[in-house]
Amino acid sequence: MKRIALEPAAVLHPHPVLLVGTFGADGKPNLMTAAWGGICCSDPPCVAVSLREATLTYHNILHSKAFTVGIPSRRHVEAADYVGIVSGRDHDKFRDTGLTPLKSEKVNAPLAAELPFSLECRLFQHHKLGLHTIFIGEIVGIQADEDILGPMGLPDIEKTQAILYGGFGSNYYFAVGEKLAKAFSAGNQLNKST
Amino acid sequence: MKRIALEPAAVLHPHPVLLVGTFGADGKPNLMTAAWGGICCSDPPCVAVSLREATLTYHNILHSKAFTVGIPSRRHVEAADYVGIVSGRDHDKFRDTGLTPLKSEKVNAPLAAELPFSLECRLFQHHKLGLHTIFIGEIVGIQADEDILGPMGLPDIEKTQAILYGGFGSNYYFAVGEKLAKAFSAGNQLNKST
Repeated sequence: MKRIALEPAAVLHPHPVLLVGTFGADGKPNLMTAAWGGICCSDPPCVAVSLREATLTYHNILHSKAFTVGIPSRRHVEAADYVGIVSGRDHDKFRDTGLTPLKSEKVNAPLAAELPFSLECRLFQHHKLGLHTIFIGEIVGIQADEDILGPMGLPDIEKTQAILYGGFGSNYYFAVGEKLAKAFSAGNQLNKST
Repeated sequence: MKRIALEPAAVLHPHPVLLVGTFGADGKPNLMTAAWGGICCSDPPCVAVSLREATLTYHNILHSKAFTVGIPSRRHVEAADYVGIVSGRDHDKFRDTGLTPLKSEKVNAPLAAELPFSLECRLFQHHKLGLHTIFIGEIVGIQADEDILGPMGLPDIEKTQAILYGGFGSNYYFAVGEKLAKAFSAGNQLNKST
């Protein structure tokens, strides 16, 4: 292994593929892809998505104080890519992708009915970082397809067939691969010190 | 598909597996796993990790104002799990895992020399959310194994053999699977509106 220094860059493996649902001030539902995001608190359960001010979603969230975060399945990979390419200002992204907007019963935001599950969020905090502002939503409900639940009653990643984004270093979406090891368990064998 | 409502929970697919490197006030290097985190800004490039106040890493970051975020490969899955199970207060996690602490040349934090790449971060912002506090680090450097770089000179996820965490719904680590579609490209075919 030859270790080298690289210039600072926003690189990490893997990124999730998050479909952020919002209503515009005019009530029009919109959907946008965010790869900069993820769970950021267990209690209250919160999810973060980072957005540029140039996006419609940025302004929609500040107006409605709410958003949804939907997890696409591998069958949605083209739709997930598309809603990250064009703007809701001049495209009806639900129509173009064939996804069905469904109003959340918990917050003032739409979700895409066909996705395996969607987190329903009220805006909890937001902080300007630079080009991106981080929006932190408290998860106040989850809409899920009953068929994707695992034994613990939560969405099971093998059943959702979730996808991931490889990031700038390899600009592709990937499937989730083989099961490697049980979490909070596989490492116990290394416990040599006390 | 039968759509049902679930109770709020910190569930998302997939989570990354981030190894957070810090020095204690006594200079002792520590490593801890965080699955709540990811890139949160492109310019300046920033990465977020959420930590409970109960962790040693939380206090180490507030003291040193710096941390590293290392990306483990599949060969590090037991080590990645282990450093998330035990505390650096009573375990030497570098010794137990056989990973080598290397001081970052850019920030006051250690990284694990064997990982494919590590982000070197100075503490940029932190915000208390609830049980977790989100720590946002500005990425001021990257240490990488030259062999894992892709054609664009950035770490390539197929070469790093990065792992992911499935979350509470299926408590396992997984490999990255098959390549599905090119990002910022696969969705173009859906562009029907103007």
